[in-house]
Amino acid sequence: MKALFFTGKSLQLRDVPLPEPPPGEALIRIRLAGICSTDIEIMRGYMDFTGIVGHEFVGEVVEAAEPRLRGKRVVGEINCACGTCAACASGNANHCPERTVLGILNRSGVFAEFTTLPERNLHVLDEALADDKAVFAEPLAACFRVTEQLEMTPEMKLYVLGDGRLAQLMVQALSSLGLRPIMAGKHREKMQLAESLGHEALPSTAVQPASADVVIECTGDVSGFADGLRMLKAQGTLILKSTLAKGAPLNLAPVVVNEIRIIGSRCGPFEKALSALKAGSIKTGQLIGGIFPLDEHDRAFEEAMSGKSIKTLFRIS
Amino acid sequence: MKALFFTGKSLQLRDVPLPEPPPGEALIRIRLAGICSTDIEIMRGYMDFTGIVGHEFVGEVVEAAEPRLRGKRVVGEINCACGTCAACASGNANHCPERTVLGILNRSGVFAEFTTLPERNLHVLDEALADDKAVFAEPLAACFRVTEQLEMTPEMKLYVLGDGRLAQLMVQALSSLGLRPIMAGKHREKMQLAESLGHEALPSTAVQPASADVVIECTGDVSGFADGLRMLKAQGTLILKSTLAKGAPLNLAPVVVNEIRIIGSRCGPFEKALSALKAGSIKTGQLIGGIFPLDEHDRAFEEAMSGKSIKTLFRIS
Repeated sequence: MKALFFTGKSLQLRDVPLPEPPPGEALIRIRLAGICSTDIEIMRGYMDFTGIVGHEFVGEVVEAAEPRLRGKRVVGEINCACGTCAACASGNANHCPERTVLGILNRSGVFAEFTTLPERNLHVLDEALADDKAVFAEPLAACFRVTEQLEMTPEMKLYVLGDGRLAQLMVQALSSLGLRPIMAGKHREKMQLAESLGHEALPSTAVQPASADVVIECTGDVSGFADGLRMLKAQGTLILKSTLAKGAPLNLAPVVVNEIRIIGSRCGPFEKALSALKAGSIKTGQLIGGIFPLDEHDRAFEEAMSGKSIKTLFRIS
Repeated sequence: MKALFFTGKSLQLRDVPLPEPPPGEALIRIRLAGICSTDIEIMRGYMDFTGIVGHEFVGEVVEAAEPRLRGKRVVGEINCACGTCAACASGNANHCPERTVLGILNRSGVFAEFTTLPERNLHVLDEALADDKAVFAEPLAACFRVTEQLEMTPEMKLYVLGDGRLAQLMVQALSSLGLRPIMAGKHREKMQLAESLGHEALPSTAVQPASADVVIECTGDVSGFADGLRMLKAQGTLILKSTLAKGAPLNLAPVVVNEIRIIGSRCGPFEKALSALKAGSIKTGQLIGGIFPLDEHDRAFEEAMSGKSIKTLFRIS
């Protein structure tokens, strides 16, 4: 099968053997897949990953032990846990220390004609939910994760820092819950996009220092940390979403002096994301840029890295 | 009066005018004062402070509007709030954006014969509480602060990272509440000191990675952040206590991936500290190194910076 393989230096379209699902896993034909900032960071060395990249997808189950899955369109959770360790036993499988992660850690990803995933990771899609909406399930779930980690109220001064892939979904996810996030962005066109979808947006440089109760950092850039700290009131909360390959010089003294709380935030609840997508609370059409075949991976990654589109997709089957 | 003045480059013993307390403030004759790591960081540029250094003290009230204070031995809270802003109105005076801070921010400190402080900042000492115990009230209050910020239980795997000034008080403060902190240190003699006072201690390098529920970072060194992260379980909590003049290259990706919570922590409740000192739950005798007159500030700071003593004091009157 055709697959996009990251060698550690470059991305190559390769012909690789069809994966054979181990017991408990399904074979999935990939239909549509999305490029995430994490994929771009992997190209920069994040996680030292080599192999088939990609983790946002909609696919069709080709082989599965469970009859309810066969032939069905699915999306899939990306953390594949051992199921037996203390973290798994305590319902914390996303933090299983033995886990593999789709296209990120010791597991081939979805920029390929087929992939395999544990059957328990799969969510069968409602027929009414189109591929190009369902493909947002994984990043949208990651947005809803923040509401599991911090109680937020509509009265809070709540900023989403960034205006790219994750930030655009984040303002929508939070707004769908009745919260009032403000996008603190950088790029005029992307802020206008958020505004056109009914959200408040302003340049992050225009946010009054020490005015925010909560900042959700979705910039995908090392500058996001210091910018977020600057915006926060004393005892405010900074939620960190960006996973970056490289560090940066940071002084944590303001965190101590202002008694800031920082919460790292990763993967989230697919059920909430799929419900919100089905309910039509998340506008995805305006977020989609180019839709490329795998052969045109150079153009696809160029578009994704340029920031010219919010979400670049691969149409694989 | 004699005072230790930091010029921005060096510490000088100067003869300066006696301070005149503004309305609401008391004039205090300093008896005993302690050198804190923050004072040492100020010498390295922290807060860009210039002026009379020092904020840990026991003194005697010489002039005050309130009769209950006159002639009394006192310790004092270091944050001097405006009393009228939104932070102050909400009971959050320690985070008043207009505050001055004793010997740290826009306010002369206590390495001097006299200082002034708002009368509401002062705590009159029990006659039974000796100066050389009461002088620990301020840093001990900062230790109890962490228990206001995070609910901890005796079942938690709880490490105090560091073995110096703050770490030694922290293990004692937490133990006095029935918690079971383990000192993760670096210096054999300092770890032995904690052990001799009944606490568990081991080298931080011997702590199993990803084994801690909570790490309280008291190292006073930039390495503490990465060391603490390494020790924490997924979704664990890192409490940051060190305020450092300089930053360091940090990669926050592990915070995101492991969904770590970080809590900055500064000043704390004097009442709790004074109660614990009065109850004899905190052993301070073994922590005190040299006790110097102001004239010997070079020797005092040399001892404090060398780490040869846990707490170096100035006997001023």
